[in-house]
Amino acid sequence: MTNTTMTETSGRGLPATMRVSTLDAAHSLSLTERSVPTPGPREVLVRIASVGVCGSDTHYFEHGRIGPFVVDGPLVLGHEASGTIVAVGSEVDPDRIGRRVSIEPQKPCRQCAECKAGRYNLCPDMEFYATPPIDGAFAEFALIDHDFAHDVPDTISDDAAALIEPLSVGIWASQKAAIAPGHRVLIAGAGPIGVIAAQVARAFGASEVHVSDIAEERLAFAAEHGATHTHVAGEDLSGLGVDAFIDASGAGPAIRSGIAAVRPAGRVVLVGLGADDLEIPVNLLQNRELTITGVFRYANTWPTAIAMLADGRVDLDALVTGRFGLDDVEAALTAGREPGSMKSVVTPGR
Amino acid sequence: MTNTTMTETSGRGLPATMRVSTLDAAHSLSLTERSVPTPGPREVLVRIASVGVCGSDTHYFEHGRIGPFVVDGPLVLGHEASGTIVAVGSEVDPDRIGRRVSIEPQKPCRQCAECKAGRYNLCPDMEFYATPPIDGAFAEFALIDHDFAHDVPDTISDDAAALIEPLSVGIWASQKAAIAPGHRVLIAGAGPIGVIAAQVARAFGASEVHVSDIAEERLAFAAEHGATHTHVAGEDLSGLGVDAFIDASGAGPAIRSGIAAVRPAGRVVLVGLGADDLEIPVNLLQNRELTITGVFRYANTWPTAIAMLADGRVDLDALVTGRFGLDDVEAALTAGREPGSMKSVVTPGR
Amino acid sequence: MTNTTMTETSGRGLPATMRVSTLDAAHSLSLTERSVPTPGPREVLVRIASVGVCGSDTHYFEHGRIGPFVVDGPLVLGHEASGTIVAVGSEVDPDRIGRRVSIEPQKPCRQCAECKAGRYNLCPDMEFYATPPIDGAFAEFALIDHDFAHDVPDTISDDAAALIEPLSVGIWASQKAAIAPGHRVLIAGAGPIGVIAAQVARAFGASEVHVSDIAEERLAFAAEHGATHTHVAGEDLSGLGVDAFIDASGAGPAIRSGIAAVRPAGRVVLVGLGADDLEIPVNLLQNRELTITGVFRYANTWPTAIAMLADGRVDLDALVTGRFGLDDVEAALTAGREPGSMKSVVTPGR
Amino acid sequence: MTNTTMTETSGRGLPATMRVSTLDAAHSLSLTERSVPTPGPREVLVRIASVGVCGSDTHYFEHGRIGPFVVDGPLVLGHEASGTIVAVGSEVDPDRIGRRVSIEPQKPCRQCAECKAGRYNLCPDMEFYATPPIDGAFAEFALIDHDFAHDVPDTISDDAAALIEPLSVGIWASQKAAIAPGHRVLIAGAGPIGVIAAQVARAFGASEVHVSDIAEERLAFAAEHGATHTHVAGEDLSGLGVDAFIDASGAGPAIRSGIAAVRPAGRVVLVGLGADDLEIPVNLLQNRELTITGVFRYANTWPTAIAMLADGRVDLDALVTGRFGLDDVEAALTAGREPGSMKSVVTPGR
Repeated sequence: MTNTTMTETSGRGLPATMRVSTLDAAHSLSLTERSVPTPGPREVLVRIASVGVCGSDTHYFEHGRIGPFVVDGPLVLGHEASGTIVAVGSEVDPDRIGRRVSIEPQKPCRQCAECKAGRYNLCPDMEFYATPPIDGAFAEFALIDHDFAHDVPDTISDDAAALIEPLSVGIWASQKAAIAPGHRVLIAGAGPIGVIAAQVARAFGASEVHVSDIAEERLAFAAEHGATHTHVAGEDLSGLGVDAFIDASGAGPAIRSGIAAVRPAGRVVLVGLGADDLEIPVNLLQNRELTITGVFRYANTWPTAIAMLADGRVDLDALVTGRFGLDDVEAALTAGREPGSMKSVVTPGR
Repeated sequence: MTNTTMTETSGRGLPATMRVSTLDAAHSLSLTERSVPTPGPREVLVRIASVGVCGSDTHYFEHGRIGPFVVDGPLVLGHEASGTIVAVGSEVDPDRIGRRVSIEPQKPCRQCAECKAGRYNLCPDMEFYATPPIDGAFAEFALIDHDFAHDVPDTISDDAAALIEPLSVGIWASQKAAIAPGHRVLIAGAGPIGVIAAQVARAFGASEVHVSDIAEERLAFAAEHGATHTHVAGEDLSGLGVDAFIDASGAGPAIRSGIAAVRPAGRVVLVGLGADDLEIPVNLLQNRELTITGVFRYANTWPTAIAMLADGRVDLDALVTGRFGLDDVEAALTAGREPGSMKSVVTPGR
Repeated sequence: MTNTTMTETSGRGLPATMRVSTLDAAHSLSLTERSVPTPGPREVLVRIASVGVCGSDTHYFEHGRIGPFVVDGPLVLGHEASGTIVAVGSEVDPDRIGRRVSIEPQKPCRQCAECKAGRYNLCPDMEFYATPPIDGAFAEFALIDHDFAHDVPDTISDDAAALIEPLSVGIWASQKAAIAPGHRVLIAGAGPIGVIAAQVARAFGASEVHVSDIAEERLAFAAEHGATHTHVAGEDLSGLGVDAFIDASGAGPAIRSGIAAVRPAGRVVLVGLGADDLEIPVNLLQNRELTITGVFRYANTWPTAIAMLADGRVDLDALVTGRFGLDDVEAALTAGREPGSMKSVVTPGR
Repeated sequence: MTNTTMTETSGRGLPATMRVSTLDAAHSLSLTERSVPTPGPREVLVRIASVGVCGSDTHYFEHGRIGPFVVDGPLVLGHEASGTIVAVGSEVDPDRIGRRVSIEPQKPCRQCAECKAGRYNLCPDMEFYATPPIDGAFAEFALIDHDFAHDVPDTISDDAAALIEPLSVGIWASQKAAIAPGHRVLIAGAGPIGVIAAQVARAFGASEVHVSDIAEERLAFAAEHGATHTHVAGEDLSGLGVDAFIDASGAGPAIRSGIAAVRPAGRVVLVGLGADDLEIPVNLLQNRELTITGVFRYANTWPTAIAMLADGRVDLDALVTGRFGLDDVEAALTAGREPGSMKSVVTPGR
């Protein structure tokens, strides 16, 4: 490989090619060989260690699209990734080679009004991993801007470093929900995001974290990982009077029930994806002056996430219930159907 | 009248009785005589000068109820009121007698968590004028806590002092919408609240204030009183990209259209009352991280309102299109049906 | 005792008199007998269980004044108090008799702009325990407004319930410092407020809490109760780059050193009382856009404090290093001079 | 000139060289010829129309340094600039050629934590016009990143477009002072920044804007351009009780006097540069819970400034009291000594 701008990791160099898993169409995955990419001036090349499987990956696999985003050519899935920097662009400190990093899988334009205001997640020109046509991390190597490859200490495992991505969703939601010490919080949905949000709410100081779900097994898991109280979906929660409600279910009835559970001046944050339109009790919104908002990814959360993890405030390793190689991505993408499954990870180097 | 705790306004005293207009049931008003009430220790007695007619007054007149609030005995309507203090309770400075005041028509408990946090409008024990069973101001005299009778300078007319109440709704909405200099704002509904909100948005520094309505006549009025742009309802506003949308219509289609007009990270404030439940485009809420909230009356707005009025930032007198005596309250309550009507006021002393 | 408005705790009634400790002038304490007071309509009478000694109590004892507040008649000191409600006023739920409570030792007017805005600590007509001429809690019984007597669960000890008052100072400071998960914080001063602030900062999610003091013994105590790092005063901390600095020392050099340790856009909160005027590095304030503020008591902190304590997030019992009876208040007030002393409590019923 | 990446403005191209005024050492200016620079990929080249003279320019001229920033080679001064885009870099839309723009004279790194959080003014790697070793705009042409060249409508003059820079300082200060409708504000110093801040405060809705200065002539000017009340420095302002105090004087006595004039929970914003250390009444800071902060340039203010100007909320043209050519920069830099001088501009093309 001829590479004039990239600083290599060792005398013997990097391989010229790498294995990647691509989604070619709904239900159609391939394991193929591609050239190892060369970092641009401000990019780093990361040897991928672990990649979490997200519901959006599974949705692309099953439907070939998410709303307006259509898979119309081979797409590398996977956007929850960690690894080790093995090469850097011409403007990046070469000392970063060898560093273990968690990848923040987005590349904003840095020039629009949203980027300059600190809301780069709302950048209209965002390039985000595993969102057509941008490739993700089910691959042996991947590129990312140097400042979106965040160093992690050795006390954080590869899996946990990968799962900082969903942890960031939980942090972003808790920030928007303005969770503070002593608060009482309701979270709907005990999947990975709900369980992470429960841990985050506790780390933000919430004294009560109520989690609701339809699956008792998931509630049991949540009760061991953040929830102080659990509720089977359908239970009337309108008397709870929580300070904040975070929806991680995307389910209309859960959202309506959750809104009714919020005290005056409380906050509602919609994280789970569901229908485009939902019937909302606007009379409660008005009479109680509730605030409802949603999250679209996250911005500036990695430093917080890394500090929280290093400080032992959250436990992400406990969420991993399945581990798969690059040649077994389909199994990883469909493992979530199994009872007892919480989070699968793909380990490209295995 | 024997009155040991009340300081009277003059040597010759107040009348023993006063005329009040009561709503006895839907469509049934009476003009009756009642005793002039005596202020409690911290109350003042106000001789009412002007009372604005609100849509809620008309709704009680026509339906005998608003949601759970049912008129099941004679109720004095009217909650937008001004007048002159004529007597004060034992703990109130007697120098306040003779002062022209605008009445903030609410009496919170001052002891609950909401009151102590500065959100007294959300007090669960609130007593609010013209909300069963609390009487309002379609009367020659009315009581209010001394600190909810706000002194106004002589440059503010009686009508304008009365209309500080709806002005407060507009201020509260603009505060929740975080309107600031240079912002672009959309307001749906060109009734009194919409027109006031438009003026307030301008006073908060908005450089563009778009107002939409179904009635061209109202839009023409709005264009002269705050709106920089007007739109006939139904027009596609999704490309506007405003910083904030304030709904003063309560109409589902206007709300949905307005939400679509808001830029990423923008705010939506629902002021108008309509259906209890509304279908909301939560996908926009999420993808753009919009924040939606509602207003329930207001708190701590009178000083701001008085300063804005005295400074000539808003013009409330221009809104008054009808003036009625206490014996003509039915006409005042139904005047809003006329084209060209914007705001009626009742002047009990006329 | 004739008492027509107060609901008594038992058939046999309360004693007619009680013992109180009064400060009559600097260095002059008396143990005297007074009538047990009768609660006003919205007050409760509390049998005092435990009262923490604050530096301000000691300052009044030693100097007879704090700034403009001069002890010119017998004053009951003590404002960190807990106990049990034994009688209630006519407007208070009699079921509250028997409840263990933590006293929030302030009585705001509830009618001024500050009170209505939720900043009742800034009420110009505040009556605060142990601030001339308002008596405090070094007594067998004391009165407080019913909503400033906060119920505590049995898992919170009498001493901890009393020390919710300084805990509230720590919470108020952390709120003003905007401490959030992952933050790095510096606290100057390892006395009771500094140690409590360190615990609170951790409970707010801070990942690093640096505490500085001149006394190594105090630093050792801090290291066991909240601090993650300790620094002997005088050490150059300018490279720390913390998110927030809380001063609990009142010492000019510590404050100047602490300000230099704050990263751009960070916050400085001055809690400790010292000189009226201090030389501040305003160039740092400007170049880094630091925000500096102070705390004056607290508002709306008790619910947060109780939730934090009940949740085990802070440990106040560990701070108690001395316990004294009402007849031994002078020893309690001067115990802080001893090395190893952290917090003395007076237990009037002992 | 060979230029492969730059799109030129016309068939006949740009001149190869341009005139620039350089400060070579204190009191030593030269008018020299330099090559017209070529824009980098994301830059634009601006033909400079107008450049305001700032106190910092004059300070460099008189002292050869500002604090740690030393002029040790020829430096082009001037950072308040407007002009017309005449060439663009390879990644910039060529349609921007010919656009009239206001230059935001800073180039942040866009990659550090401050930049990504929306506080790019605090970027440690900032390159700012006319701050050694970065050249400014006392030149016929200057480069700036395309998104820091902000389009202005034709209703904004060249001078006003240049003076958006100090307007931005005023906006940033008003934002930090949280000025809102109905507020009462004090501004110390009636120089250009103070007068602009007064106009901005009014545009933010302030109902009273008090301006103090030692020079009556300046106060008279302020009274015609934003101030509602004026005060000769030295007057006791402690009874004012304003919501916010903005210092644009840098003078210790004015700052101390201004702080004393602020009501509880009010804000203090230090804009003027003076001594590194100042004695601050921290007892007021604490007892009133004041918040003090400073401004360091600005971020994201240009869109607000342009909207305010286009909306006629502020008048910058009225501030211009002197106009000088590139060959007369020394006169421009020293014109401020004249009584009656407010703002000088340099017009390089004249």
